[in-house]
Amino acid sequence: MAINALGLDIGGANLKACHSTGVASLRPFALWKNVDALGCVLKEFLGQLPDHDVLAVTMTGELCDCFETKREGVQRILDAVESAAAGRPVRVWRTDGRFRDLAAARADPLPTAAANWLALATLAGRMLPVGAGLLIDIGSTTTDIIPLVNGLPVPRGRTDPERLQTRELVYTGVRRTPLCALLGGLAAAEWFATTLDVYLLLGDLAEENRNLDTADGRPATVAAAHGRLARMLCGDSETCSREETCRLAQDVQDRQLRLIRDAVEQVAGLLGEPPRAFILAGSGEFLARRAIDGPPALGGSRLSLAESLGSSISESACAYAVAVLAAEGVDSKGQMEFR
Amino acid sequence: MAINALGLDIGGANLKACHSTGVASLRPFALWKNVDALGCVLKEFLGQLPDHDVLAVTMTGELCDCFETKREGVQRILDAVESAAAGRPVRVWRTDGRFRDLAAARADPLPTAAANWLALATLAGRMLPVGAGLLIDIGSTTTDIIPLVNGLPVPRGRTDPERLQTRELVYTGVRRTPLCALLGGLAAAEWFATTLDVYLLLGDLAEENRNLDTADGRPATVAAAHGRLARMLCGDSETCSREETCRLAQDVQDRQLRLIRDAVEQVAGLLGEPPRAFILAGSGEFLARRAIDGPPALGGSRLSLAESLGSSISESACAYAVAVLAAEGVDSKGQMEFR
Repeated sequence: MAINALGLDIGGANLKACHSTGVASLRPFALWKNVDALGCVLKEFLGQLPDHDVLAVTMTGELCDCFETKREGVQRILDAVESAAAGRPVRVWRTDGRFRDLAAARADPLPTAAANWLALATLAGRMLPVGAGLLIDIGSTTTDIIPLVNGLPVPRGRTDPERLQTRELVYTGVRRTPLCALLGGLAAAEWFATTLDVYLLLGDLAEENRNLDTADGRPATVAAAHGRLARMLCGDSETCSREETCRLAQDVQDRQLRLIRDAVEQVAGLLGEPPRAFILAGSGEFLARRAIDGPPALGGSRLSLAESLGSSISESACAYAVAVLAAEGVDSKGQMEFR
Repeated sequence: MAINALGLDIGGANLKACHSTGVASLRPFALWKNVDALGCVLKEFLGQLPDHDVLAVTMTGELCDCFETKREGVQRILDAVESAAAGRPVRVWRTDGRFRDLAAARADPLPTAAANWLALATLAGRMLPVGAGLLIDIGSTTTDIIPLVNGLPVPRGRTDPERLQTRELVYTGVRRTPLCALLGGLAAAEWFATTLDVYLLLGDLAEENRNLDTADGRPATVAAAHGRLARMLCGDSETCSREETCRLAQDVQDRQLRLIRDAVEQVAGLLGEPPRAFILAGSGEFLARRAIDGPPALGGSRLSLAESLGSSISESACAYAVAVLAAEGVDSKGQMEFR
């Protein structure tokens, strides 16, 4: 690679960074609660990562409701990035699959909103140079399902509102999704529990005693997850048995699998041929695999980014993607874009 | 009435009080954020209401996740009530349909959890002395659908977990329900908007410029509701048209009506005869009426508490019910209970 780039993916709940050499880092950061601190936090976060010639940025945090509009959100986040970059060149990735400099991104902010999936899809396309495939990236909050044909992403939607319609974006993930979004009025429609609790109880996500980034601020442990799930049933850790909360966890997983599988089939159905391969990414790779394994299983090979590149890159896959693309100076049509 | 009673319904998001003479008051109070202040706030709240000989208490706030268990929640809320009562006698309403004094309620706290619906159902039963009917009480957060036969409530569930199963409790309401609980992964599964926004846009709830008790802390106005609904579509007030957000609002209302209508039919189906009357209560009476009016419309007369007793009593109907029952000293089986 010609230059060293640091990729930065600024979400509403997490900051993810990845160096083009593959060093990745993730920091929980509740942007909507701490928007004024973003510049400082980014600066400190970047300081812990290897040196780089260029900072490549993508974001989804502009959707946070601390911003009146996405336009305002993009501008405020770019302000924070500029201050953290401290003079280093900044490249901003956009939904047209190209990088722009800060001035150009500011002049027309909306294409900068929620473009991170396209960077990863561009990279994923290269792993599948011929024929049709799907990228399935399940993160803490959302799922991206992107059709790939002959080495290139061929999404039907570009913006998130469009992608929700095409099901290329499903607003469900393995940590932050509130259970009420999966259970509706049949359980407590409160922010009592999230999918983190489901996958803690099912043994898919590891306990983290010191992680308090949960629905009730109690730790990310199985015992506390049991209490949070019990509350969804209008019960508590005392009055609900572990069998009841495990049954609830299974039910939620089933609903989530159905949601994802339906979207995968819808997106795949427009490919013209059955996908030859599924490229799996994100902290929810395990769930993506279950969704396509069925029953019935979908044909086609499975390529796991966690297995091929390591789980820390898979979790920060969009940050990795913008780093690699910026280091190469290549846009989503395979054209050299700057340098 | 022999004595003056003040009824108090302590929820997780609202405090409601009603004097047995019919003076009602509602105060938004986010219990889960301010649990230590409850005693003080209650004292000040009670000070603004007419004098009373007895304080009659019911609650649902014990489910808040600031409490480790409902047992703890009931105890903490009773502590606050005792301090606010300042020596006046306190009567605690329970899921067995009887009042107890503070000491007895403390000795066995769980029956005090979420009993408010039974007080209102006891009162509603009197309006329908013969035959079968349903009480439908739609509040800001939840919907109670209680079967009534020959003047008495005949619920199949007593606790909230049981009532969720029987559909006598549907966790959906006209203000606080997050839209993700109705839309699932098809829209943003975030706390971006609530049903308040839907009914503001549809013209069913009035604008309140100074009410900031909304998903994003911006006012309860039509313009801000438009922005909040737009964010559910991953858009914003600028990129989404009013037609798009109105369409979303209609869709949400349709889903909510379906949820409520299904539950009404399920509960009514076990009555043995078609309901002769529906007693409607709560700030969501308008929605209850739509749910039974269909199409197809369910037969039976409609009795609106807002029309018969006034909308402020209808909104605080459970507080009114415990006040009336305590003033009379009558329990849910029609027996005299104390004095």
